Amino acid sequence: MDKASQIYALYDAMFALEDMREIYRRSLPTELTENEKSELKEKIQHTRSLLEKIESGVKSHQKKYIVDKLEPRIREEAFINIQPIQAAGRLTPEARKALIAYADGYSVCDQCLSPFRLDKIRNPPIDQFHQELADFLGMDEARVVPGARRGFQVIMNSLVGKGDTVVLSSLGHYTEFLAVEQAGGTAREVFSDNNVVTGEAYAEKIEKVKKEMKTLPKLVMVDHFDYMYGNLHDIKGIAKVAKEYDIPFLLNGAYSVGVLPVNGKDIGADFVVGSGHKSMASAAPSGVVATTEEWADTIFRTTKISGDITGRTFGVKEVEMLGCTLMGATVITLMASFPAVKKRVKHWDEEVEKSNYFSNQFKRVVGSEVLSEEPRKHTLTRVDTTGSFDKIAKTHKKKGYYFSNELKNRGITGPFAGATRKWKLNTYGISWEQIKYLSGAFVEIAEKYELPVSD
Amino acid sequence: MDKASQIYALYDAMFALEDMREIYRRSLPTELTENEKSELKEKIQHTRSLLEKIESGVKSHQKKYIVDKLEPRIREEAFINIQPIQAAGRLTPEARKALIAYADGYSVCDQCLSPFRLDKIRNPPIDQFHQELADFLGMDEARVVPGARRGFQVIMNSLVGKGDTVVLSSLGHYTEFLAVEQAGGTAREVFSDNNVVTGEAYAEKIEKVKKEMKTLPKLVMVDHFDYMYGNLHDIKGIAKVAKEYDIPFLLNGAYSVGVLPVNGKDIGADFVVGSGHKSMASAAPSGVVATTEEWADTIFRTTKISGDITGRTFGVKEVEMLGCTLMGATVITLMASFPAVKKRVKHWDEEVEKSNYFSNQFKRVVGSEVLSEEPRKHTLTRVDTTGSFDKIAKTHKKKGYYFSNELKNRGITGPFAGATRKWKLNTYGISWEQIKYLSGAFVEIAEKYELPVSD
Repeated sequence: MDKASQIYALYDAMFALEDMREIYRRSLPTELTENEKSELKEKIQHTRSLLEKIESGVKSHQKKYIVDKLEPRIREEAFINIQPIQAAGRLTPEARKALIAYADGYSVCDQCLSPFRLDKIRNPPIDQFHQELADFLGMDEARVVPGARRGFQVIMNSLVGKGDTVVLSSLGHYTEFLAVEQAGGTAREVFSDNNVVTGEAYAEKIEKVKKEMKTLPKLVMVDHFDYMYGNLHDIKGIAKVAKEYDIPFLLNGAYSVGVLPVNGKDIGADFVVGSGHKSMASAAPSGVVATTEEWADTIFRTTKISGDITGRTFGVKEVEMLGCTLMGATVITLMASFPAVKKRVKHWDEEVEKSNYFSNQFKRVVGSEVLSEEPRKHTLTRVDTTGSFDKIAKTHKKKGYYFSNELKNRGITGPFAGATRKWKLNTYGISWEQIKYLSGAFVEIAEKYELPVSD
Repeated sequence: MDKASQIYALYDAMFALEDMREIYRRSLPTELTENEKSELKEKIQHTRSLLEKIESGVKSHQKKYIVDKLEPRIREEAFINIQPIQAAGRLTPEARKALIAYADGYSVCDQCLSPFRLDKIRNPPIDQFHQELADFLGMDEARVVPGARRGFQVIMNSLVGKGDTVVLSSLGHYTEFLAVEQAGGTAREVFSDNNVVTGEAYAEKIEKVKKEMKTLPKLVMVDHFDYMYGNLHDIKGIAKVAKEYDIPFLLNGAYSVGVLPVNGKDIGADFVVGSGHKSMASAAPSGVVATTEEWADTIFRTTKISGDITGRTFGVKEVEMLGCTLMGATVITLMASFPAVKKRVKHWDEEVEKSNYFSNQFKRVVGSEVLSEEPRKHTLTRVDTTGSFDKIAKTHKKKGYYFSNELKNRGITGPFAGATRKWKLNTYGISWEQIKYLSGAFVEIAEKYELPVSD
């Protein structure tokens, strides 16, 4: 790529500034010594020469390892990245800046005062963020957790005991199954007709479980949009069924919270879980679990344990949170991206429009199919190129990798390397210009290999 | 502080480079447009002017918010920070650079290939890091987890059922109790004579539990160094007792793994848990749990659950990990700091020497006491200034805050604001020059308020 050299120079400039920062860290609070000052001058000079390189556009700069075998990642700068799980987890510039400023271990704990709990810290305004997060999700209470899966775990460990059943979708994410297993429960899937699960199908399954187990499931859950097709499921219908049976309902918003408006109470959810690194432009692992007043005391219950010798008790620490959860870099990215996230969910329609534009262009290559529901209601899409690009792979000496290479040569990355049959992509956050470029690339590759293309 | 203005300018330069980076991200892979090029030029020019400000030393630069109410943190650059839990979690420059490069959500998953598990990823070399981490701890297997507490949770949920007992120290960290409670267990404390727990005391307690509960505890655990005094406990003696009773033994190395050499097998531990953000110069939440071959299949057991409709199974995903754990920023800081961490544990003696130097200077102010064991074996120390600085607080109009302010005016931060009786500090990672400056500051403040100081 043409831009790579400049981007590596930009990284080196950022790294030079980190070296400057380290000089301040090593110094006395009073003033820099003459040695430190001259070290600083040297780094400033080095940064200037890097800026010149970037400005001149000279393609001479080579990448350097940060430490042994760890090279700067330029996937987002030099490429259009349509990797299915990475798209909406790209950080905003605000989050990247906050990450720089709050990089160190327990960085947000400078002003941790009584009652000593992460979500009570006022500076940085983590307490306010928690309230806004609950409002944003249309729920009463919210906590940050190390990923959506840890949110499932919180709820499962509060509601699901050994032998209890959880009803979930046959398109449920693997982490839901693992959370059920971790809690000692049993998972029962709901059949998805045309890869969409409905309230009726959930009702049927609940009846089946009731009959077999002589008791109702302890929890019903569904993915708002699933990980496989990015299809929209009948979340309100399922919520209604759950309510009829009086079973708590967990909405897995890993592919919705942070990219489109989600109002838990409107939907009828008792719990909403979101993923920071998947859909809220945040660093991993991060996520959110939100609930209603009714359930807050159950899943956010505070500790009751005490020391038998010391008589110690542990105040308002929450059992399933294990006290505090995201004490630095991760929570600060959630917070710094939040204003942008609140704005971007209002423009979901346009993201869907771009997704549909892409799908339609994509299908112009005869034999390329979209396996997800159409028109698309999400930016995550499962496609099948068995009838198009895979035909070339069958005889190409590089097999399916020819296709990845053609994409890469055009500055496109993300599809599973070598895949030419069924694969997934995500167009979230890509501009109209980039979408058009991306769409054109598939047509261009088809034409190069003389695959038929319709108008 | 004199340096603050320059440091804020440095932050703004780093942020300007992030803005430049964003231009590349928004652009087409081919080339920047004329508009983008001129935007880039403008940012380069802005960066140059910031570099000039830093170089000139002019104190004119004001801090700016990153987003609403979130200001750049300069605690590590403008101050000597002796906050008890932050000292060893400060990032290395390598970790800060890696964090910049791998900031985005699922950043380390670019090359996630079959069998699709974080610790199997080869590029970046996460698989190799996991093996080196196990070696570093003298154990057979290691996994990264979102903090030490999540490591306790992994082990508790694998070994401790409802009503089971865990024996731990009366100086055990609160997260140990929460992990016991979360697993449904009962915690029983071991008495600490002179704030040090011994193998004999553990044996006594185990006998007591055996008598009362008619069964042995399911787990024995202890803090290598405790959170309160930073005292070294009789870990080998406790390991021996645990072995005699054939009870698995968990070493909480939150205050040791990453700052001093820890060899789990030499100690006789079945499990070693460490904290990334507390002692391994890493971003939060991060940590490590390591074990022996004997226990690996128990705590790292792979999933057995399946979908009743789809027949899906979930391969080698580990139940207690809930699949993958640290998919981006956090694991990359652990990895990037690791070469420096491996080196720094070899210089623990010198850190202890500096800690003792400080303690001795600190006690020159008559009435200032060290509550931790002496000579110090750790850099975390609990002190009592009731007999010295608190005397001034009693009549000072700012109460104990006068003391915090005096420290702050000398560029020292970390002690609990307003505290003048019992408080904690940590001198880890501070240079000899900084230690001498720090020690001198306490004497200087005492002299200013006419408190007696010995030679």
